[in-house]
Amino acid sequence: MKNNIHAPKLSQIRITDPLFGRYAALVAEQMIPYQWEALNDRVPGAEKSHCIENFRIAAGELKGTHGGIVFGDTDAYKWLEAVAYCIENGSGAAYEKTADELIALIGRAQQSDGYLNTYYTIDHPGERWTNLTEGHELYSAGHMIEAAVAYHQATGKDAFLNIACRFADLIDTVFGPQEGKHKGYCGHQEIELALMRLYGVTGETRYRDLAAYFIEIRGHEPNYLLEERKNRKEEGIFPEFRDYDAAYAQTHLPAKEQTTAEGHAVRAMYMYSAMADIARECGDDAMKNACKALWESVTKKRMYITGGIGSSGHLERFTVDYDLPNDRMYCETCASVGLMMFGQRMASLTKHAKYYDTVERALCNTVLSGISASGNRYFYVNPLEVWPENCLPSTSMSHVMPVRQPWFACSCCPPNAARTLASLGQYIYAQDDKSIYINQFISSTLRTSLQDAEVALSMEADYMQSGSVRISVEAGAHKPFTVRVRVPEYIKKPMFYLDGTRIAPVIESGYAVLAVSRAGKQQFELRGEVRPVFVAANRNVRADAGRVALTLGPYVYCLEQADNGDNLACVYADIAKPVASNDPQKGLPGPLPQLGFEGVRLTRSLEKEDALYGEPQFEKTVAHLTAMPYCLWGNREPGEMLVWMKALI
Amino acid sequence: MKNNIHAPKLSQIRITDPLFGRYAALVAEQMIPYQWEALNDRVPGAEKSHCIENFRIAAGELKGTHGGIVFGDTDAYKWLEAVAYCIENGSGAAYEKTADELIALIGRAQQSDGYLNTYYTIDHPGERWTNLTEGHELYSAGHMIEAAVAYHQATGKDAFLNIACRFADLIDTVFGPQEGKHKGYCGHQEIELALMRLYGVTGETRYRDLAAYFIEIRGHEPNYLLEERKNRKEEGIFPEFRDYDAAYAQTHLPAKEQTTAEGHAVRAMYMYSAMADIARECGDDAMKNACKALWESVTKKRMYITGGIGSSGHLERFTVDYDLPNDRMYCETCASVGLMMFGQRMASLTKHAKYYDTVERALCNTVLSGISASGNRYFYVNPLEVWPENCLPSTSMSHVMPVRQPWFACSCCPPNAARTLASLGQYIYAQDDKSIYINQFISSTLRTSLQDAEVALSMEADYMQSGSVRISVEAGAHKPFTVRVRVPEYIKKPMFYLDGTRIAPVIESGYAVLAVSRAGKQQFELRGEVRPVFVAANRNVRADAGRVALTLGPYVYCLEQADNGDNLACVYADIAKPVASNDPQKGLPGPLPQLGFEGVRLTRSLEKEDALYGEPQFEKTVAHLTAMPYCLWGNREPGEMLVWMKALI
Repeated sequence: MKNNIHAPKLSQIRITDPLFGRYAALVAEQMIPYQWEALNDRVPGAEKSHCIENFRIAAGELKGTHGGIVFGDTDAYKWLEAVAYCIENGSGAAYEKTADELIALIGRAQQSDGYLNTYYTIDHPGERWTNLTEGHELYSAGHMIEAAVAYHQATGKDAFLNIACRFADLIDTVFGPQEGKHKGYCGHQEIELALMRLYGVTGETRYRDLAAYFIEIRGHEPNYLLEERKNRKEEGIFPEFRDYDAAYAQTHLPAKEQTTAEGHAVRAMYMYSAMADIARECGDDAMKNACKALWESVTKKRMYITGGIGSSGHLERFTVDYDLPNDRMYCETCASVGLMMFGQRMASLTKHAKYYDTVERALCNTVLSGISASGNRYFYVNPLEVWPENCLPSTSMSHVMPVRQPWFACSCCPPNAARTLASLGQYIYAQDDKSIYINQFISSTLRTSLQDAEVALSMEADYMQSGSVRISVEAGAHKPFTVRVRVPEYIKKPMFYLDGTRIAPVIESGYAVLAVSRAGKQQFELRGEVRPVFVAANRNVRADAGRVALTLGPYVYCLEQADNGDNLACVYADIAKPVASNDPQKGLPGPLPQLGFEGVRLTRSLEKEDALYGEPQFEKTVAHLTAMPYCLWGNREPGEMLVWMKALI
Repeated sequence: MKNNIHAPKLSQIRITDPLFGRYAALVAEQMIPYQWEALNDRVPGAEKSHCIENFRIAAGELKGTHGGIVFGDTDAYKWLEAVAYCIENGSGAAYEKTADELIALIGRAQQSDGYLNTYYTIDHPGERWTNLTEGHELYSAGHMIEAAVAYHQATGKDAFLNIACRFADLIDTVFGPQEGKHKGYCGHQEIELALMRLYGVTGETRYRDLAAYFIEIRGHEPNYLLEERKNRKEEGIFPEFRDYDAAYAQTHLPAKEQTTAEGHAVRAMYMYSAMADIARECGDDAMKNACKALWESVTKKRMYITGGIGSSGHLERFTVDYDLPNDRMYCETCASVGLMMFGQRMASLTKHAKYYDTVERALCNTVLSGISASGNRYFYVNPLEVWPENCLPSTSMSHVMPVRQPWFACSCCPPNAARTLASLGQYIYAQDDKSIYINQFISSTLRTSLQDAEVALSMEADYMQSGSVRISVEAGAHKPFTVRVRVPEYIKKPMFYLDGTRIAPVIESGYAVLAVSRAGKQQFELRGEVRPVFVAANRNVRADAGRVALTLGPYVYCLEQADNGDNLACVYADIAKPVASNDPQKGLPGPLPQLGFEGVRLTRSLEKEDALYGEPQFEKTVAHLTAMPYCLWGNREPGEMLVWMKALI
């Protein structure tokens, strides 16, 4: 797209990081084969997916009715997208044959006019585009298109891309501003960013224009989705939509007039991502300003310290500024994936590093938390505080699972996490004509070409152990270029070295600009302190008043019952005392240390200990506490977990 | 019923208490006329009731379909019950004509075989008893019976009682253990306790036996309600019942095997109340033991300090021990009315005073909180912590209203509160052959006869102002009798006096036993300290860890934004400092003082104040805090409210 910043191909990147390398390997070794079994309903004890079965039925190769959730097709698409990234990053060759077979099946399930959606094809053939609020047809199309683009880029094969283009072409004949065309848009945004990707790979401006149109008409009166709901006679698909409102799917205002993050968090992120793409491609400053306002609203007022979003469990949505309850929220894994996508696009739009602070926050905490160390158990909801006993079905807490699950009736998150981790390289590096951007400190190598030279870059991001990020750059004869290194706030007193000599690079838009002016190998180094730090929240966050979270670099830590006993609500952190960095917990991914610190524990609160209420008799004892990285919680015996601890103030 | 303890008639009691007298007057002066307007859909801006309209349609006097909620008839019944009590207590004569007319209308809406339910009569005539899970037919019948009994007792008139008996007789021919009869029972308990009342006034043992049968069959396999749901083809009435389980309507175990309070809180209270009635009437010790276990479960593990119950907003139900979240819970006004009913019955069953501690807690806090000082605005949900900004529709907090409402689409609470306050006398006094029981310290007079004498008792319960409850008893020549005065825990160092001389009465089952041995007037006095006291919760209550509530006698206090500014989450109470008793807030009912105390307020939590997260910089200032009685909160400008304050521990 415009301004020429882009991520290198995943094939140019090798992740060597001890933590993320482990997760990247998990995708190919565990998640993809496991999820394939799940999509084929072969995981004992897991919720049934029906996903592949539905394609078989739609293709006329099996008899039956559609099973599972209305947008179940997207699980296959996201799985294919993850496979594509694994093929591209070199870990997924083993799955290419299965993927090709699935793509062929998808092709057989596609109708002759290009339409593709198993729910409507199997059971509701006459009802295309009649329930855009709930039917997810364009959403499903979008995920198909994303997968097809990725698969084409990874393999060079055209079959899937052709399927996608045929469907996109059909959509373009059905929807649009031209007279006689359908004036609706999807109840769950996704098609917009997908069409922008399809435009990117095909150059077909119709796709870009349709994406822009879908964003543009949203939120204008009369409100299409509300009218559709009003006019529907039949029962809807989602019972919880009785509480539907215009803001839920971000149709409360035209996109460019939106300034606060509202409604369903995943829908919001996918829409804002498309808006950022469009702003960049079309040079639309009003759209850019809306994106900036929405970014500020999310990240300065409505985001958890873990990069989780969606404060309301019911309808999985944003609420109001500073409303960040820690136990009953949603914080869907997919929403944080969406936040990473939005952040990456904002960085591409503005070339500013700050957006990657949030990408990193979402990645290192909520997205990783969504996956077990084994790769085959998943969180959908990522709470910051769990008391397993009260996470009961048929209550207000029924959406919170205290233990990762093998699969879900609505299983968007596991394949979404898989495709994100499989494409991690694109979040680490970017480049434009004259610069390589280092956006994440994840040890890895990059081979690229720039300013007439081949460049080999290698990063050892050992910043949390030794306080050092070493970046070696080797290039042939070339015109000058720069390596732009994001300088995050958590590296205190950052100092830069070139071949052992201190340098003082310019800091521009959050990046330290390191000039690579000569051929050969140059060794840059960023040194600084990354220490465990207690963090507080804005005092308007009622849920966190008087509380602290412990962090190490981008990683949020938490207390777990396995280390600290139960009733973590009775723990007070002593933030004046030092925090010790201890060995990592054995058996868990990566080198992240356990953190030890002191606090007190209320060991008694009542004169009569067995009473429910009574005269206070607060007794405290010194507590030696151990915090674990939040992203790794729940990998041992089930129990309580707590991010925001009371502080001795 | 057996053991002969009973409440005096309301006509024997006059409430003179400055707080409760005001509320008692509100019922007749404000609530009954206002609610009558609401039932007739004449309150501008209020949710439409349809209640009276439905009876007109069912009677064939108006054309139309049933409007409003399926059990809307009960609003009229509870209104009539409140009118009956007002007639009996001397404040309701003005409404007798309207009540008689409504009763006549109800009679015309009754079908020829005795069946009476406007929802089924108007729109679903062929579907009687087919959806006991959701249809509330027996529940509605129960409220009708309760009202009819009350109206008969108040007026001596038979018309309503005849309507009730005709319906009860029909129910008795339909349901029962006999072969060929329907083996179902109601999805919302109420008929059981109502039949016990009907038995009480008619002596007809069939009613008692049917009540006992309805309790007995509940919870046996196969589970009637679950089977009914499984076999239903049509859409149900309540969408939220997709999460229905056996415990929701207390059908998870046979009644006598239940030991923990489960499911929907109102259903539970009405059922336990019937169980206590049956245990007493039938001398059923196993039932009595179940009642005791359930009472302990509620009051020692699952009840808010305000006497609120129902920790889950979704499905308005109990959850697990010590799970008492303060902002998202349900704490329905009706549930606390039900807790008062259960407590009163437990006290009648056991003749122990302790149950009235909880009755008082529920009454003085949640039930009163359900009603505005003006009598015409109501809470349905009674939170212990409110941040109005996050009480948004279409979110997890949509059930919490930060401001009392004029009416509700489901408006069970307002008339339930009215009937409770109108019959308050029955919670103050009880008597058996040889004793008068004083169960609540609510200034009032009682005229009764006992041991061959007329007795005039007068109580000035000035305990919170002067530390004194003066009870004068005047009787003619009589056999010895006792006045049994409940001695609550909040009166410290209780001392008793007879005509100014200290006496040392026996304390028996929580009552101080005061012998009235001679004719003439005797002046008893209970003196003791009732001071503001900070209270803590059991440390297993995660939500209240490190927190305190301020109480004065049975009254829980709270902080309101009107007195203390916003962001009450940043307030810490200093419980070592004294609490000052100040003048009552002007314009609000009763003489309850405002309480002043010291604490600190976090005035800053972050180094960079406008950041969302960052380095802690906790700054505190001394705060002079003012607490108001919880029962009176929300009667001034809307704002935050908080019961459980952080404590400086």
